[in-house]
Amino acid sequence: MTQATPGRFITFEGGEGGGKSTQARRLAAHLSAHGIPVLLTREPGGSAGAEAIRALLLNGHGFDPVAEAMLMFAARREHVMATIRPALAAGLWVVCDRFVDSTRAYQCHGQGVPGEVYRDLSVLALEGLMPDLTLILDVPPELGMQRAVQRGVAPDRYERLDAGFHARVRAGFLAIAAAEPDRCAVLDATKGPEEVFAAIREEVARRLGVAA
Amino acid sequence: MTQATPGRFITFEGGEGGGKSTQARRLAAHLSAHGIPVLLTREPGGSAGAEAIRALLLNGHGFDPVAEAMLMFAARREHVMATIRPALAAGLWVVCDRFVDSTRAYQCHGQGVPGEVYRDLSVLALEGLMPDLTLILDVPPELGMQRAVQRGVAPDRYERLDAGFHARVRAGFLAIAAAEPDRCAVLDATKGPEEVFAAIREEVARRLGVAA
Repeated sequence: MTQATPGRFITFEGGEGGGKSTQARRLAAHLSAHGIPVLLTREPGGSAGAEAIRALLLNGHGFDPVAEAMLMFAARREHVMATIRPALAAGLWVVCDRFVDSTRAYQCHGQGVPGEVYRDLSVLALEGLMPDLTLILDVPPELGMQRAVQRGVAPDRYERLDAGFHARVRAGFLAIAAAEPDRCAVLDATKGPEEVFAAIREEVARRLGVAA
Repeated sequence: MTQATPGRFITFEGGEGGGKSTQARRLAAHLSAHGIPVLLTREPGGSAGAEAIRALLLNGHGFDPVAEAMLMFAARREHVMATIRPALAAGLWVVCDRFVDSTRAYQCHGQGVPGEVYRDLSVLALEGLMPDLTLILDVPPELGMQRAVQRGVAPDRYERLDAGFHARVRAGFLAIAAAEPDRCAVLDATKGPEEVFAAIREEVARRLGVAA
């Protein structure tokens, strides 16, 4: 019996309007062009059970912040168990649009959920699974929101929150990157998409050995 | 400013067919007849947000057990924050049909979710809130199921599980009671409803000082 070499796990993080979804798709295509089998997924969602929880979260019941963090991690657990872990075990690389750092930045830094809630739920849900590489697309909130509006995307619950919230979220992502430099790379997403994509290819080449 | 004396928190626990819902209603009426303001509630559910999560759990997506425990505790957090804590703070007594011990008995003892998952989620969701009195209506699973069938209740997801599962759940409730005798009373629910209700009134009189 041969066993597949486990795949690598890459996440995209950052506030709105940094181009995460677009760049995640481009990176998946880039890896695929290098002969690497890729699963492209996103949070919240990414599996049937997780999508059902996602729908509940987006329906805007206005959950208590701790309850909301629990729902987020329940969805993440489903996503990890049904989608991410099996893919990695089968040798696929997984590219995920938002993951655990978004919960930390939005719920803890942005909304004041205590850090230990995040840590305890992470331990329970992930059992040690963390991304090999996290690409944080950093953009000032004002520019990010402007881009989101131009894109014609209806503002969701988070996008309707105030400027102070978005500033805290951005600072949260930067703090995570500063604390975990081996896992995280901060990329300047005020630049154009081609330049950002070149920087992403460079990070993936340097850290994970895929030709840029 | 005067502050209300906090109310007392009483839960009913045990497997199917022990008469929890009926006895909870009777106890609420009994307390009310003694001039005690009562809130009667139940889990899963008990608040708008919690009911939405309950619907998701009952829809049978077949969640991963850890994800399911997180959903249960997210619903419980909503119930506690929106319903139970405000009622207790206002001086109401709260009578609740199932609470945290059901998660422990069904998910941990019955389905093998690790005890630390239960403990960590309890700490996060409850922040120290525990019932003042838990009445465990104990009945052998075979008799309990027979009663549930006679009642014409469609078997839900748990009721369709095997005999071994129900035996583990019953043993789980008894283990909780043995570990926490100051909080828990085990009542023999093979007896008729009048006898069981008399035993309940006796426990409430002895432990919480309400005339039987």
